[in-house]
Amino acid sequence: MTRIDIPEGSLFGVANLPYGVFSAPGTEPRVGVRVGDSVVDLAVALGDDVFARPSLNAFMAQGYDRWVEVRSRITELVTGEVPDEAVFGVGDVRLHLPVEVADYVDFYASEHHASNLGRLFRPDAAPLMPNWKHLPVGYHGRAGTVVVSGTDIVRPCGQRKAPDEDAPTFGECRRLDIEAELGFLVGTPSPLGTPVSIADFPRRVFGAVLVNDWSARDIQAWEYVPLGPFLGKSFATSVSPWVVPLLALEAARVPTPAQDPEPLPYLTEREPWGLDVDLSVTWNGQEVSRPPYREMYWSPAQMLAHLTVNGASTRTGDLYASGTISGPEKDQRGAFIELTWGGREPVTVNGEARSFLLDGDEVVISATAPGTRGRIGFGEVRGRILPAR
Amino acid sequence: MTRIDIPEGSLFGVANLPYGVFSAPGTEPRVGVRVGDSVVDLAVALGDDVFARPSLNAFMAQGYDRWVEVRSRITELVTGEVPDEAVFGVGDVRLHLPVEVADYVDFYASEHHASNLGRLFRPDAAPLMPNWKHLPVGYHGRAGTVVVSGTDIVRPCGQRKAPDEDAPTFGECRRLDIEAELGFLVGTPSPLGTPVSIADFPRRVFGAVLVNDWSARDIQAWEYVPLGPFLGKSFATSVSPWVVPLLALEAARVPTPAQDPEPLPYLTEREPWGLDVDLSVTWNGQEVSRPPYREMYWSPAQMLAHLTVNGASTRTGDLYASGTISGPEKDQRGAFIELTWGGREPVTVNGEARSFLLDGDEVVISATAPGTRGRIGFGEVRGRILPAR
Repeated sequence: MTRIDIPEGSLFGVANLPYGVFSAPGTEPRVGVRVGDSVVDLAVALGDDVFARPSLNAFMAQGYDRWVEVRSRITELVTGEVPDEAVFGVGDVRLHLPVEVADYVDFYASEHHASNLGRLFRPDAAPLMPNWKHLPVGYHGRAGTVVVSGTDIVRPCGQRKAPDEDAPTFGECRRLDIEAELGFLVGTPSPLGTPVSIADFPRRVFGAVLVNDWSARDIQAWEYVPLGPFLGKSFATSVSPWVVPLLALEAARVPTPAQDPEPLPYLTEREPWGLDVDLSVTWNGQEVSRPPYREMYWSPAQMLAHLTVNGASTRTGDLYASGTISGPEKDQRGAFIELTWGGREPVTVNGEARSFLLDGDEVVISATAPGTRGRIGFGEVRGRILPAR
Repeated sequence: MTRIDIPEGSLFGVANLPYGVFSAPGTEPRVGVRVGDSVVDLAVALGDDVFARPSLNAFMAQGYDRWVEVRSRITELVTGEVPDEAVFGVGDVRLHLPVEVADYVDFYASEHHASNLGRLFRPDAAPLMPNWKHLPVGYHGRAGTVVVSGTDIVRPCGQRKAPDEDAPTFGECRRLDIEAELGFLVGTPSPLGTPVSIADFPRRVFGAVLVNDWSARDIQAWEYVPLGPFLGKSFATSVSPWVVPLLALEAARVPTPAQDPEPLPYLTEREPWGLDVDLSVTWNGQEVSRPPYREMYWSPAQMLAHLTVNGASTRTGDLYASGTISGPEKDQRGAFIELTWGGREPVTVNGEARSFLLDGDEVVISATAPGTRGRIGFGEVRGRILPAR
């Protein structure tokens, strides 16, 4: 038996306990929990086969009461002794996509981001559309191209047409960008025809991950009218390997910014589900932005209530992301198109003036939040750009 | 042993042989093939466990050569004798969703439909967007709410705002509509980072189904700018239970209408994959439209090449639909919003002037196409509207 050492100031103390899917060399992927710099094999430590699987889906589907119970058992376990064979160093394992993604939805919930993008994409119109403050605008993305942190991103090709060109050309994306987001994972499914009430959010959503919604801005700008983004987004969406349980985010809950006009009743939040999560975006190792999640206009509870208000069912493994997180300050913008104002105001990265992503660039998004005892971490979502094929 | 009787003029002769998932009372869903008015249990008839499953996915994933081989074995079987215990009357079984849908994409490939919708949704602008003739416009829909024919459709609720209203209100959809489409099912998956060439279409796509993409026009009109349709579509999409193999559609292949401007090389089709499929839409038993698939501007091979040109992977069970099929004539329009010109020109259904769907209404979409010996049928996709909850 082993006592797990938790380094002073670790972002992965007992107030966090995020779940992931890991494999040690020569073994099958299975569910583990991160504690300090260790990963605990839950199938072994708890003797429960629901964790001996290559995704969190089966456990997430067991529902809220079970999530509470398992969290309590893990807390007991890791503050006592754990069987030696259940403990791995986080540097000795490979981390996998933690869930089998069912449907993927991306929202657009930052007022600062939506206003900035409106100014950039539609300079002659009001930056926010008339619907924006009445509902969390969102759309479906491609679930099959959600990949885990560390997966290389091949620069996409496609049709682009600059405003001064007569016709589109085919070629490599020239305006490859990131979007720093939080993603929420549905655990308990809901049936067709039955909306999920806003109050039911914590019983439905299991946890949160970091999301990098890679975006090909030139492809997107040409294709997106009138049915929305498609190939400008669908080549890859990266997520962090650790799923922070919603149960670990109690101390991070804050009210959303004031909402005016008052939302319709189905979107009226009695318990606040804004989240005080601080993100950091580094570009080739240099921090270029610190997006604050607490600035998001719409909460994840409002997003889920909206997503299902038409009776759409949800499935275990549904992932919905917040949309780019941008704050009011320039160095709080979560996409490079905003940070560099369409490329016209480059930022300095390691001494070079940079706007969009070049081949070989690496972007890392990380985040922390207040926990019940010190801060907790989301880990990171990392990706490097490979040349187009 | 039994010889299967195929009635004279049946749309389900040996030139068709569509696959589905069925169950007899008290038994588990499994794969069958339709022949005349019979369903043949393939796990029993061919002694192959890949068919003893509740979806076609495992068989579809086996790839093109296997699809050819199995089709040839079934042809031999049903022109000879079949074990009694493998044969069911089509009226004695329940039909299920034939595939586990991975990602769902909906295109917008009818020039007539896109022009009509443009005139209705954006009366002050050019009906077709500048990108429309350069690429097959498409977007992702909700895979989790794809349902099989016969599933009742609960009228959705949501936010609607009529042009003359100051603010949105919450309530029942008042402009509930259909979209008559064909859907294509990916069998052989393709990896991330690797486009599927247009020539590879018949080796990737297993077959086709009928699709009714139910649409809440008032919800859609308010929400869809700038990220596309979301709740106006995601409450339900119905598909027919029989998957017509692409191998059965050889005689239906026709060139698409002339494409001008010439498509970019990745969209240039050397072998025609337009399809001469005739659809029929009945509203409470009365035929109101006959949409012709041969009028579609973009072919399904072009759609797949476009969908993957950015390196997006595909999975077995991916469903992509054509978008509403509308021909040049008024009685060839595949959506009621077009057929009734936004509700302003009602059609007469069983003696009543009608525009959008009322509770209790039933819509049936069916289709036939030329086969190698007489016509072949797609069966039908049927749905009835239940009152909002």
